[in-house]
Amino acid sequence: MSLTVLIAPSGFKESLSVKDVAEAIARGVRRAAPHATILTAPMVDGGEGTTEALVAATGGRLMQAEVTGPMGQPVDSFWGLMGGDGPRTAVIEMAAAAGLSLVPRDRRDPTLTTSRGVGELILKALDHGVDRILIGCGDSGINDGGAGMARALGARLLDGEGRELPEGGGALQDLAQIDVSGLDPRLAGVGIDAAVNWHNMLLGPRGVARVFGPQKGASPEQVEQLDRGMTRYAQAIMAATGRDVAPMPGAGASGGLGAGLVAFAGAVLHPRFQIMLDYLDFDRLLGRADLVITAEGALDAQSPFGKVPCEVARRAEAIGIPTVALAGTIGKGARQTYEHGIGAYASIMRRPCSLEKAIGEGAKLLRNAAENTMRMLLVGQRLAARA
Amino acid sequence: MSLTVLIAPSGFKESLSVKDVAEAIARGVRRAAPHATILTAPMVDGGEGTTEALVAATGGRLMQAEVTGPMGQPVDSFWGLMGGDGPRTAVIEMAAAAGLSLVPRDRRDPTLTTSRGVGELILKALDHGVDRILIGCGDSGINDGGAGMARALGARLLDGEGRELPEGGGALQDLAQIDVSGLDPRLAGVGIDAAVNWHNMLLGPRGVARVFGPQKGASPEQVEQLDRGMTRYAQAIMAATGRDVAPMPGAGASGGLGAGLVAFAGAVLHPRFQIMLDYLDFDRLLGRADLVITAEGALDAQSPFGKVPCEVARRAEAIGIPTVALAGTIGKGARQTYEHGIGAYASIMRRPCSLEKAIGEGAKLLRNAAENTMRMLLVGQRLAARA
Repeated sequence: MSLTVLIAPSGFKESLSVKDVAEAIARGVRRAAPHATILTAPMVDGGEGTTEALVAATGGRLMQAEVTGPMGQPVDSFWGLMGGDGPRTAVIEMAAAAGLSLVPRDRRDPTLTTSRGVGELILKALDHGVDRILIGCGDSGINDGGAGMARALGARLLDGEGRELPEGGGALQDLAQIDVSGLDPRLAGVGIDAAVNWHNMLLGPRGVARVFGPQKGASPEQVEQLDRGMTRYAQAIMAATGRDVAPMPGAGASGGLGAGLVAFAGAVLHPRFQIMLDYLDFDRLLGRADLVITAEGALDAQSPFGKVPCEVARRAEAIGIPTVALAGTIGKGARQTYEHGIGAYASIMRRPCSLEKAIGEGAKLLRNAAENTMRMLLVGQRLAARA
Repeated sequence: MSLTVLIAPSGFKESLSVKDVAEAIARGVRRAAPHATILTAPMVDGGEGTTEALVAATGGRLMQAEVTGPMGQPVDSFWGLMGGDGPRTAVIEMAAAAGLSLVPRDRRDPTLTTSRGVGELILKALDHGVDRILIGCGDSGINDGGAGMARALGARLLDGEGRELPEGGGALQDLAQIDVSGLDPRLAGVGIDAAVNWHNMLLGPRGVARVFGPQKGASPEQVEQLDRGMTRYAQAIMAATGRDVAPMPGAGASGGLGAGLVAFAGAVLHPRFQIMLDYLDFDRLLGRADLVITAEGALDAQSPFGKVPCEVARRAEAIGIPTVALAGTIGKGARQTYEHGIGAYASIMRRPCSLEKAIGEGAKLLRNAAENTMRMLLVGQRLAARA
């Protein structure tokens, strides 16, 4: 009996990359079902690792590029050309040019850091003549609303006296006007999609400065300064482009980069996993699959709210493909995932064992769990044959 | 789709009785497959809990009886009348009359303890007019080779001067002759089967006195005394009955009770789980089942060698019924069970967790694991429907 298995896992936080997870599952499936066809759709959230995962999954190419880093210094960065026979597609993770990990811990000051490098990566992709660009938001080290990126793309941010503002989110409180006449005209000819956390707002008490500023190194005073800046920025965007980014879900993603992408790059913001599934051509893969195996570090009551296993399972269930989930921890409320397309789940644990030890042998546990799960499914097939 | 599930687990050592295990699995199966028909065959090893489990599994009756305990004092004991519409069947666990737990820890002396109460339980069953008796060996506190039982049944053990020996294995070194003329004649009209550990030998370096004597409280000198006694005993049995119990697998079971059962009760010794499966009418249950779920505390490289999961799985696989196994620990070499009829296995663990905690919530873990496993099997059925 031929069987096609689509492996669509998340990475395991602080333990296994999504690539490692997918490979471990594939090895386990092959042990139990050597003749199964295996398809892979690694689920990334737009943050670090997104480009590499999408390039690997589609047989694309990783492109090196030197761009301006978040502190203004040059950094070795990269973007990806996805493979496959669809439209020519670039993938950019903003963290590769303006990520928090590019800012030394003792110099974190989100009033100064810039997203300029993200704009430079977009220009590289445009130079390459791509048809569309996916921009992953997440793990950012900036709070400039994408102002740096806008400058790289040709916009000018001016104060009340017409002078160019310095880089960084701190200066935006003096913003009076944005001149978009110099934006790169090629932007109009390319489709740009951004993968964002849909709950990241730009302004106010639940806005990006207040929620994320402190973890990027902002003092309480700087948080207020940044929020004032974002408010000015949203007003200036409205004046320059007619777009109201203030109430837009996801506009606050990656230090407000979401807002800048909409305003200056003509991007469309999407809930991150939904757009990832689209770019991975998930529905086409599903069309070939008999079964989906997904995975995440934990499966629990939070899983139905934007976590990978349920996002994947809902799509699969919609066209009648069963999904099973593997997890390190099956936590409280995991049963709720049954209502969101998960047909069955299994923990990767095999014995009483500490968290440290489990993390240490995570890949092996995952491979074995995938094998056991596949074997269980094959027993189920035998049951059906009896019926 | 109608589904009949046969639950045939072992108990979980020092954690859950076989009854608790079977109930927990049944609850889990019902959660996932409310309309499944559930059959139960609790797998016991002949030791403590055997009678209760067989009585419960067959809807039989537990019979109270006061008999002579291992120290010679009266003890409250019991035997079982199995239910069902087969032959009238008694079940006796020797530990209920001569078990180690009936001997206070500070008074353990296997040169003195007696199996007389086992013979008294056999007489109770004969009084009840049963057609056959299953005697479970295990957890014994005696080393008298069943001499006390033989006396209860009517035999006389005599020294060189024709005097009756005192009770206990220590006196057997003075045994000269056994008079079997007074044995209860009803023994000839009943079938007696004994469930034994097939590896328990009566004599010599791997004999019962040397292997089990110390844990029953024998000093090194007493061990030698007991082994000499067993040698005399085997010779006297040969002279009195023409049966050579010395090389017989299982004759050393329960302090040599195996030998006495063969010699004086006309019993047939059987590897314990095979005879349990027969008395549970396992093949008839299998004939109604689509699936077997078995379980044990651990599944590992030892499992194929006489442990419940593989014993059960081999029988099931022989007639094409798939078996899945649940275990607290999936240990090294568990894969070898695939060669012995286990189609798939799963651990009951759901997260990194200590052994103590896992034991504390064992029943819940088992119920959840059974539910998840059943769900996985149902997904497998869906897969088959697609193919």
